[in-house]
Amino acid sequence: MKQSQLFQKTEKNVNKADISINAQLLTKAGYVSQLMAGVYSYLPLGLKVLLKIENIIREEMMKVGGQEVLLPALQPREIWDKTGRWDTVDVLFKLKGARDRDLALGPTHEEVVTPLASTIINSYKELPLAVFQIQSKFRNEQRAKSGLLRGREFRMKDMYSFHTDEDEMSTFYNKVAEAYMNVYNRCGIGQITLFTYAIGGTFAKYSHEFQTITESGEDIVYRIPGTNTAINKELMDDIEALNEIIPNYQVGDESKLEQLKAIEVGNIFRLGTKFSDAFDLKYTDKDGKLNGVVMGCYGLGPSRVMGTIAECLSDDKGLVWPEEIAPFKIHLISLAFDDQEVKICNDIYDLLLQNNIEVLYDDRKEIRSGTKLADADLLGIPNRLVVSKRTLADHSVEWKKRTGNETVSLPISAIVSQFASSK
Amino acid sequence: MKQSQLFQKTEKNVNKADISINAQLLTKAGYVSQLMAGVYSYLPLGLKVLLKIENIIREEMMKVGGQEVLLPALQPREIWDKTGRWDTVDVLFKLKGARDRDLALGPTHEEVVTPLASTIINSYKELPLAVFQIQSKFRNEQRAKSGLLRGREFRMKDMYSFHTDEDEMSTFYNKVAEAYMNVYNRCGIGQITLFTYAIGGTFAKYSHEFQTITESGEDIVYRIPGTNTAINKELMDDIEALNEIIPNYQVGDESKLEQLKAIEVGNIFRLGTKFSDAFDLKYTDKDGKLNGVVMGCYGLGPSRVMGTIAECLSDDKGLVWPEEIAPFKIHLISLAFDDQEVKICNDIYDLLLQNNIEVLYDDRKEIRSGTKLADADLLGIPNRLVVSKRTLADHSVEWKKRTGNETVSLPISAIVSQFASSK
Repeated sequence: MKQSQLFQKTEKNVNKADISINAQLLTKAGYVSQLMAGVYSYLPLGLKVLLKIENIIREEMMKVGGQEVLLPALQPREIWDKTGRWDTVDVLFKLKGARDRDLALGPTHEEVVTPLASTIINSYKELPLAVFQIQSKFRNEQRAKSGLLRGREFRMKDMYSFHTDEDEMSTFYNKVAEAYMNVYNRCGIGQITLFTYAIGGTFAKYSHEFQTITESGEDIVYRIPGTNTAINKELMDDIEALNEIIPNYQVGDESKLEQLKAIEVGNIFRLGTKFSDAFDLKYTDKDGKLNGVVMGCYGLGPSRVMGTIAECLSDDKGLVWPEEIAPFKIHLISLAFDDQEVKICNDIYDLLLQNNIEVLYDDRKEIRSGTKLADADLLGIPNRLVVSKRTLADHSVEWKKRTGNETVSLPISAIVSQFASSK
Repeated sequence: MKQSQLFQKTEKNVNKADISINAQLLTKAGYVSQLMAGVYSYLPLGLKVLLKIENIIREEMMKVGGQEVLLPALQPREIWDKTGRWDTVDVLFKLKGARDRDLALGPTHEEVVTPLASTIINSYKELPLAVFQIQSKFRNEQRAKSGLLRGREFRMKDMYSFHTDEDEMSTFYNKVAEAYMNVYNRCGIGQITLFTYAIGGTFAKYSHEFQTITESGEDIVYRIPGTNTAINKELMDDIEALNEIIPNYQVGDESKLEQLKAIEVGNIFRLGTKFSDAFDLKYTDKDGKLNGVVMGCYGLGPSRVMGTIAECLSDDKGLVWPEEIAPFKIHLISLAFDDQEVKICNDIYDLLLQNNIEVLYDDRKEIRSGTKLADADLLGIPNRLVVSKRTLADHSVEWKKRTGNETVSLPISAIVSQFASSK
């Protein structure tokens, strides 16, 4: 993609007062644009990152046997009345449809997926089953000042699983927990993301959150030293639970835990038969007896993960994208002026395209070198290749990784093999 | 994918009274499930088809230079007031956000994309530009009884282009018209889809629709004999326009045109500076003068295309998917009973998977052969491979295309080369 033709502009004057680091950086770099608080447009660079994150999630959910579906955002009131949540979910957007019908915009989809599953599941032979979707969801938040971290409209992967019993459920639950860590690892935040015990609800002792450590996090978690496991704040009041999670834990041991600020980037719940009961979702077991289907649900928000990465991995110069989710692999910067030099730049660009290496080509004229290099840092593409009179004298380009300061002189003839070979 | 594990069930009792052919077939085959009138869940088979259609559209829009973005469904009233459409678009879903703020759910995105473009476009050097998105849209339809053809929530590709003048706009407009025909060709409805003249509006003499001929269509078009061009009903009152479109057209010549029922599967509009004026979207020309940006918009609904294909290409046995958008390329049907035969079936399935050939494997036990074959016809996957005691005696499978009646005996050793080689 040529930067001169890209639907993007670096924004100099971002209001720093009322927005988060992630929104500041992503807006400044032209990845997203705020339409209203908690509602963002994704520009081409932003959508590329979002779709790459979504594809990683899709792959990992498929590996554990999830089947992809797409459920509606528009939902009739009746299904929310069945679970009693029409009146209790305070972030539910409510609206009127034709003939004054009460509708909601889905913040979650248990009320849709459970009756749907009841048209498909009859027998124990069909279980376990898991379906997931990746989709825009809606929450009528009172406040939404955290950029992509807390949206009124946001992207969500939600998976729902169906089981004969709690044991089968647990096996799957643990597999999903692993799959989630694979997602965070591939997105570059695995090392700073903690598997976190949280309150479970009626049907389970615990649920689990995935919490990414960062100073700007709104949550507080307590890490068990030397592990990637933590306990969330609400659960810290439950001494019995603490004793179970941390052997020999005693009152006062709280000080031995590491208190950290974090962003919740995923959560997984055991639902028991709460929703199956509401929608009469049953299966016939081996003995011909009817039983309630045991369910689990698993949330992971791609837009929130994107915001978290912007929040955690950026530096004072701008965004820093891990290779697997970067909008492009290479940022080719032309500092060339004369026609002959520009031609060589264009040739390098064509060569990269021909070899299917994702490249953003800063071919902009009348932009100063300093601005181009600052923009490159702000955009955060992993590999910067600068072409100038100086490098061309040497038949080479200057290669710098976004994560380092060292520059390397790379012969033009070696570019393809360098970047086609590495993943 | 093994059919025994697929989140799908063939539905015997579909209410035929009040739903369209496409909804009947897609529901019966377990591709979609109605949540309320005009609102459908996409099950795994349905979503596979939808995503394939969306990818074809994406590819064709990128070929003409479209850049993909994702704009919000939630939109503040103010932007709709600016164009005066808050009160005139009768299908606009309206709702209240936090602090009683008036919001709409986007049925189209001119009100979002135009101010966004004004933050990016400054100079003639940046034009032309085109952005598109593929996304769920919302229309508060009074009636929604046409299945995927008229949804309250539906999938839409909408592209918006930005130009210095009408000439540049026209060049792009014609390219998009070609791209649309590429989409319909690849989706198998190109031969029955007509490029149709329609009323243009304030800023253009004509707009254009793409109309797919079918008896169940709600629109009426008049085809110019021997061409794939037509004129829509509204325009038939405009004798001057007719004269321009059809040389030497006279009053009464209407009878020489072929009157056909059709479904609108796309439309393209010249917007002139209608929206640019509302949002002050201007560019500086070569002489340093400010001019309004000339815009075009281009709609193509993937879910409606999916419904149209179901409506037009199906037969009395069920759905018939063209290869490029079928959920799977092969439907492998096991009619095997004993362990040795089942093992060979499983081996054929594994072989196909290893060669990346998309296959749905009907491995279901306790299902009669007749039911399996009827289900295969209903699901409409292009190639059916039946494995039975009889075919195995011959070391072969029975191959039938969904579009024909002829069966061919295909040696097991030839399956991979047969299907890996053809596209």
